[in-house]
Amino acid sequence: MSDKRFSPHDARDGAERFLGAAATLFVATNGSHGHPNIRAMAPALVVRADHVWFVTHLESNKLIELVKDSKAAVYGCSADSHTEVRLWGTIAILDDRDSRRRIWRDDFKRTFPGGADDPSMRVLRFDAVSGRFAKDGKVGTFGAGQ
Amino acid sequence: MSDKRFSPHDARDGAERFLGAAATLFVATNGSHGHPNIRAMAPALVVRADHVWFVTHLESNKLIELVKDSKAAVYGCSADSHTEVRLWGTIAILDDRDSRRRIWRDDFKRTFPGGADDPSMRVLRFDAVSGRFAKDGKVGTFGAGQ
Repeated sequence: MSDKRFSPHDARDGAERFLGAAATLFVATNGSHGHPNIRAMAPALVVRADHVWFVTHLESNKLIELVKDSKAAVYGCSADSHTEVRLWGTIAILDDRDSRRRIWRDDFKRTFPGGADDPSMRVLRFDAVSGRFAKDGKVGTFGAGQ
Repeated sequence: MSDKRFSPHDARDGAERFLGAAATLFVATNGSHGHPNIRAMAPALVVRADHVWFVTHLESNKLIELVKDSKAAVYGCSADSHTEVRLWGTIAILDDRDSRRRIWRDDFKRTFPGGADDPSMRVLRFDAVSGRFAKDGKVGTFGAGQ
């Protein structure tokens, strides 16, 4: 193992720590006319480096993109700590009671005044297939559940 | 014109101002296995909201992605100013002397010690087709050269 590489275990560990503390992540989808699309999103819940949950408004264009193609990437970086995390996977659009309750936080009320059952809210669960973690010039990759 | 919308002129104007001051932008490409890909990049040169130039290392995976498919999106946001800019377009990989000189800055020497002619450097020019600017809940779109 070169000292320029993280083991899959260490890469996953680093990614999980970064994602768990991230206030903002960047989510890429396959957008219109063959172009990728990006937006900043605040994660609602991070479960290891396997699942990143978000909430979105029913009128968001990204829902249309995700209905057409669920493939997505989640990205985060910090210039201060020279850290970069990238996950590839798919996003499921969820509308069930359990998912809504699982991710609900009171500060979502500004956007969704109806609370966890607000009909204009949808839950997005990103399920990672693989990931990449880089820090200080060292890089490592890992698979889902590895 | 609703007061929730920027005119194309004002949207372009806002996007140009934001891009001209941005230290970091996020570039999405069509990556492997049908997944989009993202990375943070520092713009080397911004020409209105039409062209955003970057430099990259010849060994970067993004070059392979761009050779396969030049379609890309450039995104920037600031939580402080509630501003979001998104451009859709294509990225050209350039290796000519004029392009290299046009974007060269001395601080690139850390990555490319050979200067503007460093053989491991490639110039990327993103050419926008359309854009979207949002600020404080107000949104507007614009076309290239509009």
